[in-house]
Amino acid sequence: MIDFSGTYTDQYQLAMGQVYFKKGDAGKIAIFDYFFRKLPFDGGFAVFAGLETLLDILENFSFSEQDLNFLEQQGFDAAYLSYLEDFRFRGKVYSMKEGDLVFPGAPVVRIEANIVEAQIVETVLLNILNFQTLIATKATRMEIQAKGRKLIDFGLRRAQGTGGYHASRAAVIGGFDATSNTRAGRDFHIPVSGTMGHSFIQSYGDELEAFRAFAEVHPKNSILLVDTYDTLRSGVPNAITVAREMESRGERLKGIRLDSGDLAYLARRSREKLDAAGLDYVKISVSNQLDEHLIKSLIDQEAPIDIFGVGTSLVTGKPDAALDGVYKLAFFKDEPRIKLSETISKVTLPHRKQVFRLLDESGNFLGADVVCLAEEAEIKMMYHPYDPLKFRNVSGVAKEPLLQLVMEDQKRIHEHRDIREICEFRKARLQKLAPEYKRFFNPHIYKVGLSESLRDERNALIDAHKAQKK
Amino acid sequence: MIDFSGTYTDQYQLAMGQVYFKKGDAGKIAIFDYFFRKLPFDGGFAVFAGLETLLDILENFSFSEQDLNFLEQQGFDAAYLSYLEDFRFRGKVYSMKEGDLVFPGAPVVRIEANIVEAQIVETVLLNILNFQTLIATKATRMEIQAKGRKLIDFGLRRAQGTGGYHASRAAVIGGFDATSNTRAGRDFHIPVSGTMGHSFIQSYGDELEAFRAFAEVHPKNSILLVDTYDTLRSGVPNAITVAREMESRGERLKGIRLDSGDLAYLARRSREKLDAAGLDYVKISVSNQLDEHLIKSLIDQEAPIDIFGVGTSLVTGKPDAALDGVYKLAFFKDEPRIKLSETISKVTLPHRKQVFRLLDESGNFLGADVVCLAEEAEIKMMYHPYDPLKFRNVSGVAKEPLLQLVMEDQKRIHEHRDIREICEFRKARLQKLAPEYKRFFNPHIYKVGLSESLRDERNALIDAHKAQKK
Repeated sequence: MIDFSGTYTDQYQLAMGQVYFKKGDAGKIAIFDYFFRKLPFDGGFAVFAGLETLLDILENFSFSEQDLNFLEQQGFDAAYLSYLEDFRFRGKVYSMKEGDLVFPGAPVVRIEANIVEAQIVETVLLNILNFQTLIATKATRMEIQAKGRKLIDFGLRRAQGTGGYHASRAAVIGGFDATSNTRAGRDFHIPVSGTMGHSFIQSYGDELEAFRAFAEVHPKNSILLVDTYDTLRSGVPNAITVAREMESRGERLKGIRLDSGDLAYLARRSREKLDAAGLDYVKISVSNQLDEHLIKSLIDQEAPIDIFGVGTSLVTGKPDAALDGVYKLAFFKDEPRIKLSETISKVTLPHRKQVFRLLDESGNFLGADVVCLAEEAEIKMMYHPYDPLKFRNVSGVAKEPLLQLVMEDQKRIHEHRDIREICEFRKARLQKLAPEYKRFFNPHIYKVGLSESLRDERNALIDAHKAQKK
Repeated sequence: MIDFSGTYTDQYQLAMGQVYFKKGDAGKIAIFDYFFRKLPFDGGFAVFAGLETLLDILENFSFSEQDLNFLEQQGFDAAYLSYLEDFRFRGKVYSMKEGDLVFPGAPVVRIEANIVEAQIVETVLLNILNFQTLIATKATRMEIQAKGRKLIDFGLRRAQGTGGYHASRAAVIGGFDATSNTRAGRDFHIPVSGTMGHSFIQSYGDELEAFRAFAEVHPKNSILLVDTYDTLRSGVPNAITVAREMESRGERLKGIRLDSGDLAYLARRSREKLDAAGLDYVKISVSNQLDEHLIKSLIDQEAPIDIFGVGTSLVTGKPDAALDGVYKLAFFKDEPRIKLSETISKVTLPHRKQVFRLLDESGNFLGADVVCLAEEAEIKMMYHPYDPLKFRNVSGVAKEPLLQLVMEDQKRIHEHRDIREICEFRKARLQKLAPEYKRFFNPHIYKVGLSESLRDERNALIDAHKAQKK
């Protein structure tokens, strides 16, 4: 069974924690930033998800007796183990809103905590936010292409183990209407959907008899799977027979599902047959290895599809396995901190920071976020993070601060946000983003720049480290 | 929190179950096969994993009060809900051994159970076996390339949410020696490994001071991360300084870790510097987006690397998101069952079946499994599943039956198998497989054929369905 107690972490967090503890640094506040470097799916945006899950975890994160016994066997220091016995995450969390659009290089979450606490929660923070952000982004890409058709998550059977649980949550933030995953439905209040698989038809051997039995037991919620033997010669005619029988009882067949073959062709032919039988209210649902590209192709072909069922590519974020989010130290013991690198693009940004989004007169996104020092009152210039020739005067531009305090004293500041509410916020934000950022091929690049003060502070730290090496 | 109670399933399993229940079929035994159609990673084999996890789940699978309340809200029938209240999986499980090599088209697991039970557990079975088999296969591919060097799983932070938990388990079956995932270490008795991240060095600002502090607190287990500022000009010289200080205290530095840059070059230069300082016992560990191809490249270059740390590509099975395992009805109400398809390769195999592996005189794998009816005593001919021109006389060949009863009466038959034991079995099996199946490019294709009786039974069922349609 999986719960989020203290050992849900990487061992090195605990090993580093012991050094801080033994050296008397355990009480000292550190600032870490969570950010990512590359947009998933070669897309033009990402959708931030997982924050409410993370806050639930942080509110309760502690070491169980089983955890402590295990760490004792691992040879951890006795005084340190006593310290871990009382471990709680008591730090502050600043974060962008869950469901907001996020871009590479800008801090999405900022943690200010005792360095041991900040370090131990790193792994679970990355584990939760990287994955849900990946899936919410994938789902949003599908929602954009589905142009208002219903989307249902069918992924649990091909999900990466129990990862399927939070995948279903993130899918709703990205615009999915329902899930086949009963557990996710129970816990996240997602509408749950599901009628029959091929085995059901096979178990009767006779397709018509199987449809009849199902419709009798589930008169309000029957979507008949029509491709077990032959979609157009057997499945659809049998579905029509049953739909008419249902009509004679005052009931209505909800839909049919196509799960193989050429979905555009089969949907069109099925629609014709259903309409010819006066069954224009019967919905057509399709599934079978769908992703955003196939959904777009089906919509482009004007296939008469009402519902898309999406599995593997949704819940695994295929073909991207992971968002590359990282968690980097920016400030400790009253000093800004930096990590150098062979490549300037991987040098981290020091200091306690804020992120401002630039807005046009109507409140739409101008296509740039500026990262600055937290205390900066006014940003005049925005600089490219490492190309000194690129900068822009943004002094007259409206700016929205994105990082807000969301947790302190072991409690979240705001009410627990429901995923529907997060989804609505995500939709509103997506509307503020120009279409060029949403296309598949060569999407416009949303800019993330630095304020002059932050750039100068970073460069000064780089110079200081260079001087040290000489 | 995630546990494996009754709602850990797809809704349609419950919807179908209600029909079976209402129609009086709930007590009737069905036979389902778990198999997959395509080897992951374009490889020549897969490693079966997840069975012990699945059996743990099946031994305890039941509906909690919370589950039943939710299903009641969903409109499920009251009598059916009472039935689910007493739900247990009481069926039989036949399975190949966990850790065995498995191939497309041959049943890996066979479930014989009351159809409602068999149906409801389908989702969790697929969810657990598909994922762990994917990861154990990925890990084995790395183990083959690592040629005896140590492999450590660093994946939790980039895992697909809580999926990382079972990924660490499957990695050990595939040959990983240790994990950074403390929770997996606690629960699966995997050696846990982890020393420091970049933030630790940054928190001191001074690399040498950071190394000294760590070595003082963890004298027996220090692997110093040397690339925070400059690997060869700063990291390695500082590590050497600390290693000598440790020697003067009678201690030994365990290793250094390289996490960026050209790992082959840096490993070679680091080794030279360490050896020149008399520190030939200090190990070199590397990490940074490794996969089996990069491991092979580093080994081919004879880079002096002792330990590979692998993250994302291991725990997500990148670039494959999922194994395409399915669960198909083969027998019900005393009759064989089949699912047809537009393509013959997707037609299912009816009946209760067994799988035999062909062996040469030394007990090595001949490169073929034969699927047959469970009661067949002797297999004379093996047929290609759908090419009638391909067959082979196998009557004199030694054969090993692969499907064995592993669970009945709500209990596993065998003792709980430890993952180390499963890993040893996997190694022994892999040795019996010729090298041509293990190479990256165009691996030799392991054959899965049918016995004459099974082929005839399947073809007769296809003909019967064709006749029905006319």
